[in-house]
Amino acid sequence: MATIKDVAKMSGVSVATVSRVINKSPKASSASIEAVTKAMQELGYRPNATARALVSQSTQTMGVLVADVSDPFFGTLIKAIDTVAHQHGKHVLIGNGYHSAEGERQALELLINNRCDAIVVHAKALSDDELTAFAKEAKGMVVINRHIPAIAERCVSLDNVQGAYLATEYLIRHGHKNIACIASNHNIEDVDKRINGYRQALKEHGLVLSEDYISYGTPSLEGGEDAMTNLLNRALPITGVVSYNDYMAAGALSTLDENDIDVPKHISIVGFDDGLIARYVKPRLTTVRYPIQVMAERAAHIALTLADDKALDPDMSTQYTPTMVKRDSVKSLL
Amino acid sequence: MATIKDVAKMSGVSVATVSRVINKSPKASSASIEAVTKAMQELGYRPNATARALVSQSTQTMGVLVADVSDPFFGTLIKAIDTVAHQHGKHVLIGNGYHSAEGERQALELLINNRCDAIVVHAKALSDDELTAFAKEAKGMVVINRHIPAIAERCVSLDNVQGAYLATEYLIRHGHKNIACIASNHNIEDVDKRINGYRQALKEHGLVLSEDYISYGTPSLEGGEDAMTNLLNRALPITGVVSYNDYMAAGALSTLDENDIDVPKHISIVGFDDGLIARYVKPRLTTVRYPIQVMAERAAHIALTLADDKALDPDMSTQYTPTMVKRDSVKSLL
Repeated sequence: MATIKDVAKMSGVSVATVSRVINKSPKASSASIEAVTKAMQELGYRPNATARALVSQSTQTMGVLVADVSDPFFGTLIKAIDTVAHQHGKHVLIGNGYHSAEGERQALELLINNRCDAIVVHAKALSDDELTAFAKEAKGMVVINRHIPAIAERCVSLDNVQGAYLATEYLIRHGHKNIACIASNHNIEDVDKRINGYRQALKEHGLVLSEDYISYGTPSLEGGEDAMTNLLNRALPITGVVSYNDYMAAGALSTLDENDIDVPKHISIVGFDDGLIARYVKPRLTTVRYPIQVMAERAAHIALTLADDKALDPDMSTQYTPTMVKRDSVKSLL
Repeated sequence: MATIKDVAKMSGVSVATVSRVINKSPKASSASIEAVTKAMQELGYRPNATARALVSQSTQTMGVLVADVSDPFFGTLIKAIDTVAHQHGKHVLIGNGYHSAEGERQALELLINNRCDAIVVHAKALSDDELTAFAKEAKGMVVINRHIPAIAERCVSLDNVQGAYLATEYLIRHGHKNIACIASNHNIEDVDKRINGYRQALKEHGLVLSEDYISYGTPSLEGGEDAMTNLLNRALPITGVVSYNDYMAAGALSTLDENDIDVPKHISIVGFDDGLIARYVKPRLTTVRYPIQVMAERAAHIALTLADDKALDPDMSTQYTPTMVKRDSVKSLL
């Protein structure tokens, strides 16, 4: 493949001049533009994005860090950011952190090193301090699904406590008292917050349940099957279940079905996220809606605004509240 | 942010020397290594991936082009490639083509311009000729889910005709004669090939059905609902359905359920892909397994081998055959 040096040699100018022509610098003379353009065509030279980025100190690339692109929740997040990026003539570079500090750090450094001028970060393992340090280095970095007080204006987050509270209270208002909680076994703050929301709702309604009502698994279909199986093994008089996400709820449905326990006749279930799967399991899931698409769009807009050194609109909301979506997986006991 | 020029100035050496130190060039003297390292630390300079790539003519970035990252099929593909990339110390840059020629072209140019030395491409809108031209330019480019004769050794593909043939023949062997086909309305070759497989199986078993037995929709849950609704409106004596993918099959299940038509008692359904959803709909889907994970891993290995100028193992398989996965959505009429 031809290099910028080959182009310089053939056109009889310096590499710096070729670079100026490629970057449409006003300093490039019309004679050099002509010579360089001709040499580029003859050599089949493709202007190199890294060379262009080096000169302009900016790339056409926007960065996104997620835990795992194969999780449809993150697929939705990435698509929303990609849509905004395209509207601004940018493409998206994606990194996977897999909820590990080392993975998140490496992926984030790659994005920053590639001079992504706007970056949306979903990181759960890195500390507040480390993310704040990264944010100082990358002026267009925005954190999603996490609130860090030191960089609050650059965090787009959801009230996870409120989400789980809503789900639990919904079952309580429909006459349920023995409500189990299926939780993720990932060591991230979302889990603690959602369990807190569940506990708060129980407490405010004077319900006291043992820790046996909380069952853990991976935040997946298989994890939901495991967590539900463990709950059944404990032989508790459960009538309702709040689940960490829709996938775990779908796994729980599968386990209950295999055990001939009808949902919602015998046990009611509430999911979390309102992802694609919620409408296609049987019965259709009553769930908590996580507005990930609008949140991701908002995060992308803030990141691009900051990358452009423009001022943020102080009225723009960055803290989102979940809502209930009522379908067929909850039965009223009243 | 400190630049490479600031580092050069403080350490009293040229930018080229700083670049040599960053790239661990054997030409860098120990005195300059010491001076540059000290200056980098004092200035908090982060070695710039684009600057490093420019010198080494190679990046640590592997490229992937898919239609849409938010589709779980592509999520699985990307995760498999990301896993292989990590094993080789590389990160993944992802582009979305959205099944449009212009989208695919732009995303692919971005990946090539960013000097991704290995690229896996899932492109359905670009012509064979254009993809072949791209492949000539990017020596580490591999095409997945498409067979292009001119670059056959760089194509990892599935026999789509055979997949749909298997699904249709499976229903025929279980006594079905009036078999409908739910197809995608996307203008890509996979659709034609799967419809051909359906027609071949019917023909070889002496079954003649009108074109009304084929119904189209977007390759999604909603598209499956639409296609199934249209089939029901046509009042055909259907006992079996082969679907373009599991999502459309799940949408069809939903429509049939709303119309109190039991699966598999009244109508049997066969999906395609064996994606996550196939095991979690009710009844669990009998489907055609698309080995996308092993195919994506193979494509990544070939791309990395070619990018390194190494020879390919001629015995490595690049053409894959689908298989049947039997679950609960087909009833035998025999």
